[in-house]
Amino acid sequence: MREPFVVSTNRLESFSDGVIAVAITLLVLNIRVPVPGAASLAHDLGHQWPAYAAYATSFITIGIIWINHHVMIARLARTDHSILILNLVLLLTIGLLPFATDLMAQYLNGSHGQHLAAAVYGGAFLLMAIAFFALNCFILLRKGHMLRVELSMEARWRILARGFTGIPPYVIATAIAPVSQYATMAICAGIALFYALPIASGVNQTTA
Amino acid sequence: MREPFVVSTNRLESFSDGVIAVAITLLVLNIRVPVPGAASLAHDLGHQWPAYAAYATSFITIGIIWINHHVMIARLARTDHSILILNLVLLLTIGLLPFATDLMAQYLNGSHGQHLAAAVYGGAFLLMAIAFFALNCFILLRKGHMLRVELSMEARWRILARGFTGIPPYVIATAIAPVSQYATMAICAGIALFYALPIASGVNQTTA
Amino acid sequence: MREPFVVSTNRLESFSDGVIAVAITLLVLNIRVPVPGAASLAHDLGHQWPAYAAYATSFITIGIIWINHHVMIARLARTDHSILILNLVLLLTIGLLPFATDLMAQYLNGSHGQHLAAAVYGGAFLLMAIAFFALNCFILLRKGHMLRVELSMEARWRILARGFTGIPPYVIATAIAPVSQYATMAICAGIALFYALPIASGVNQTTA
Amino acid sequence: MREPFVVSTNRLESFSDGVIAVAITLLVLNIRVPVPGAASLAHDLGHQWPAYAAYATSFITIGIIWINHHVMIARLARTDHSILILNLVLLLTIGLLPFATDLMAQYLNGSHGQHLAAAVYGGAFLLMAIAFFALNCFILLRKGHMLRVELSMEARWRILARGFTGIPPYVIATAIAPVSQYATMAICAGIALFYALPIASGVNQTTA
Repeated sequence: MREPFVVSTNRLESFSDGVIAVAITLLVLNIRVPVPGAASLAHDLGHQWPAYAAYATSFITIGIIWINHHVMIARLARTDHSILILNLVLLLTIGLLPFATDLMAQYLNGSHGQHLAAAVYGGAFLLMAIAFFALNCFILLRKGHMLRVELSMEARWRILARGFTGIPPYVIATAIAPVSQYATMAICAGIALFYALPIASGVNQTTA
Repeated sequence: MREPFVVSTNRLESFSDGVIAVAITLLVLNIRVPVPGAASLAHDLGHQWPAYAAYATSFITIGIIWINHHVMIARLARTDHSILILNLVLLLTIGLLPFATDLMAQYLNGSHGQHLAAAVYGGAFLLMAIAFFALNCFILLRKGHMLRVELSMEARWRILARGFTGIPPYVIATAIAPVSQYATMAICAGIALFYALPIASGVNQTTA
Repeated sequence: MREPFVVSTNRLESFSDGVIAVAITLLVLNIRVPVPGAASLAHDLGHQWPAYAAYATSFITIGIIWINHHVMIARLARTDHSILILNLVLLLTIGLLPFATDLMAQYLNGSHGQHLAAAVYGGAFLLMAIAFFALNCFILLRKGHMLRVELSMEARWRILARGFTGIPPYVIATAIAPVSQYATMAICAGIALFYALPIASGVNQTTA
Repeated sequence: MREPFVVSTNRLESFSDGVIAVAITLLVLNIRVPVPGAASLAHDLGHQWPAYAAYATSFITIGIIWINHHVMIARLARTDHSILILNLVLLLTIGLLPFATDLMAQYLNGSHGQHLAAAVYGGAFLLMAIAFFALNCFILLRKGHMLRVELSMEARWRILARGFTGIPPYVIATAIAPVSQYATMAICAGIALFYALPIASGVNQTTA
């Protein structure tokens, strides 16, 4: 007697929501309360502007991934072991973002390790984007029979083609880190902004 | 073929619940266990009373925002990309509160940076109130066709007019910070108390 | 036009679950990784046994509160503003437990502040028990018309009478702190154990 | 009048999901942002490779426990007090993993306490595996009448026999710690990888 596999897409979504909600909220730990010292609090708070930039960028980026994650999972009628594991790998990369964000915040404005920190920051987003795309490919190309609504192969490729466009910007953001850590930060912030703006809503709806 | 947009208000609520629940619980990290030192533990615990005041104030405030958030989202029959993004911005401001609370707790009672810390504390609440009001305006004025139950324009303006009353107190709390950080703390605590008292229940029910 | 109040008991439960789940998991932060030093790791790990005792006691206690919370809320057919606020106050006391647990863990075994730390630990549980009982009283005595299944006044008083039995042990645990911090720890652990044992299941089912 | 016991398997699952989601996301706190110092950031980041290995291993392991937990709980039609308490004990062991992971990460590569740290790491997984197996035994052997779908005794024993196979590898991982901490790390990583690979999907589906 073989039992049916019982992790529903509902539970997959709610567990993923939980991990993403915790990761996004832990980002605030990267903004430190300055220890009273020689400088004024205004100076200390101003000096850590990279922490605010990194917080906002990572928060919006994770939020958009959350939106896209639902669009992706909502296509599924059920799950199986391999989907759960690939989803877990995606969550693992999201779970790293509070670390990468903190690293960027601490080093962006310094003269020591700033290029590597930026590369790790861009690279962490890139890793997440790749994990997301891989799961999307796996679902649409290998698990097409598990979709809630049947999609033609052409429609699936169109979704993937659009979804792929999320990766190159992070390649550029990471590749430019040795040149300028500020460029990496700006590109990552720009990507978050682009997907948040209304102009991207059509893109998001179908490419996630 | 265009897929329908699939993030339900249910998922929006449960993700928002998750972020708010984590943010509200992280507040406790602002209450430090004193390092054994020269002074007695009683003195050390007593000395950090600002941490308790800031914890209780922020906890109740975030809790009330959670209540109001549900009232606001429950009006919606469905979501779209712009609502999700504005909601994300609201969550971003809520996610900052553990930092603002910690800053207030560490500086309120000192002689260095106390006015700025209070301004940041009041300002963080103000930012959250504005983000909340903006989302409420957007839903009621621009997305009226997505409401679960149709509301007359007059009813919508009445909700917004009442909702707007949540903003000026935080303007005052922030503006008074350069004069007295204690006044800021007292006003913020007073606002939380006001909305928590039974007298405000009618207000809350319809102005959220 | 007056809108109906829309925070369902479902959402109340899921938000409370979220806060309780975060608080219970934050307890682990109280168990510190020893900094490599003069003593062996075995000595350092052994030396912080109060952290393990406090972790287990607080974890089980919060877990039992979670169970009882569901029993209490499940009696309700709907919520209103005052129930939400009293529930928020209960969550506020639960949110303090990671701090109280950490305080107990750091001071239990020392010769400085150990009695006060134990009083705070017992007192935090007492506060939570009182907040729980107050909400239970409020629901059963003032909001009887909102119960899912009608209960006779006699049945309600019986539930409350049994529920009240959870308070005196914490009064004793707190009151004994000035005499012996170990007694406080032992009583708190004993209470958790008592409610966890099968013998208490009947009690829990009806007194929550 | 006796009230029915009201914690549904749904709430049990969603609370467990919450605790597991927080625990899995707290793992990232073990990856420290290096303090700028004499060494280069590249050196510092490279030097803490044990933190990355422990993060990935623990993340995947907790993720697999989450999957198996759902398979186990989904068999139940309802819960009772003893199931809730045993589940709480399981969650207590999962809650310890961020500490055990951090300990492993800090000591794996050192010359002080590395064997004990590895034993604690392997031992924490072992404890979790035992708590999981105990709950599974309890449900299948003592609470067979509460299953959603009736299972023959033979089928139950087959599930338990397969489920038991998860324990010996952790016994070995823990027992080998005094010989080599790297062996413990490798075995724990290997177990996570084994269960994550497609080959194990059949095993997972029925042995959880």
